[in-house]
Amino acid sequence: MAKMSSSATAPWKQILLKSINSNSHLKHSTYFQLATVESNGRPSNRTVVFRGFQDGTNKIQINTDSRTHKMDDLKHCPFAEVCWYFTETWEQFRIHGKVNMIDASNSDPDKLKQRETAWFAGSVRSRLQYLGPTPGIPSLDEQPSHDSLDPSAGPVDAFCLLLLDPEQVDYLNLKSNERLAFSTGRSFNGEKFWTQYKVNP
Amino acid sequence: MAKMSSSATAPWKQILLKSINSNSHLKHSTYFQLATVESNGRPSNRTVVFRGFQDGTNKIQINTDSRTHKMDDLKHCPFAEVCWYFTETWEQFRIHGKVNMIDASNSDPDKLKQRETAWFAGSVRSRLQYLGPTPGIPSLDEQPSHDSLDPSAGPVDAFCLLLLDPEQVDYLNLKSNERLAFSTGRSFNGEKFWTQYKVNP
Repeated sequence: MAKMSSSATAPWKQILLKSINSNSHLKHSTYFQLATVESNGRPSNRTVVFRGFQDGTNKIQINTDSRTHKMDDLKHCPFAEVCWYFTETWEQFRIHGKVNMIDASNSDPDKLKQRETAWFAGSVRSRLQYLGPTPGIPSLDEQPSHDSLDPSAGPVDAFCLLLLDPEQVDYLNLKSNERLAFSTGRSFNGEKFWTQYKVNP
Repeated sequence: MAKMSSSATAPWKQILLKSINSNSHLKHSTYFQLATVESNGRPSNRTVVFRGFQDGTNKIQINTDSRTHKMDDLKHCPFAEVCWYFTETWEQFRIHGKVNMIDASNSDPDKLKQRETAWFAGSVRSRLQYLGPTPGIPSLDEQPSHDSLDPSAGPVDAFCLLLLDPEQVDYLNLKSNERLAFSTGRSFNGEKFWTQYKVNP
């Protein structure tokens, strides 16, 4: 039996917020794995940090370095799938959606403002990594080190905000052995809504 | 500066075995995320359980239900990427490779023997799930329940062994901030070897 609800109240979001809260004493509970597709059509997968929902929306915020491979992946295929496993409560969320990349070259002032807010929401220490050498390339023995940064300075070029807009969510609870599938649809008047099914685990 | 070593002694395997050992007191330390590509070209990602290395090789064993979507994904694109984050030691392994699917229809007696060994290596309780209703489809209110299984009975049709043969491994240590990239090559005589680089985190 399917249940339907409007976009504003995504039914999986309440479950996810409860899981985040129940696992918040564990540092790694804000880490999840983000899968993308490379330009050669192969999968890629890495751990990233949950930076909250964009205000008033279901969109998931992730910070990244615009010099990493995932940027090329997302230019080739803008879809990503988050796999978020909560080790304390044995719950898994698979969140599939399109990713919007907001980097320094973005022409929308509102989006650049969101990027700036995300930059200042991170610690000064976490901002320093964007001043380091290009991630993933062979390292030289002598690297310039960046030990300090003006805390009031805005985002550097390498800083990019990713916004994942969920289209499908698969929730699995390994304690109760329950699984729910959530997907989006459009009503006749164009409004986005969520459908929810109980599926076999 | 790159280091080279022969295939038999994959240099990342020693690091991974040490991480598995250091984190073995945590139940979730054998769980990792497996990314594949769907037939529509989009990424897919889910948590699976590490079932050890195939004897004497670097191949990673994963058990799966042949009725799950990941089987369709792997038929479309046989490559997968594991992302394995160890929460105690703050280490991440990204393991990319080709996946060999060994299901009931396999015609190679050696592979069917490997599948049988993998079946009996799992608990009787874990084998029961392969007798359940098709995973991921809407569940009916009344489901036949399978509470018992002859412990000496061989693998059921839905049981499939996946063997991931690593081609590239990316290791990141968040405590020491060190990152190593491992990749495979072929020598003039066709022998597989591993190259290792230190890369920027």
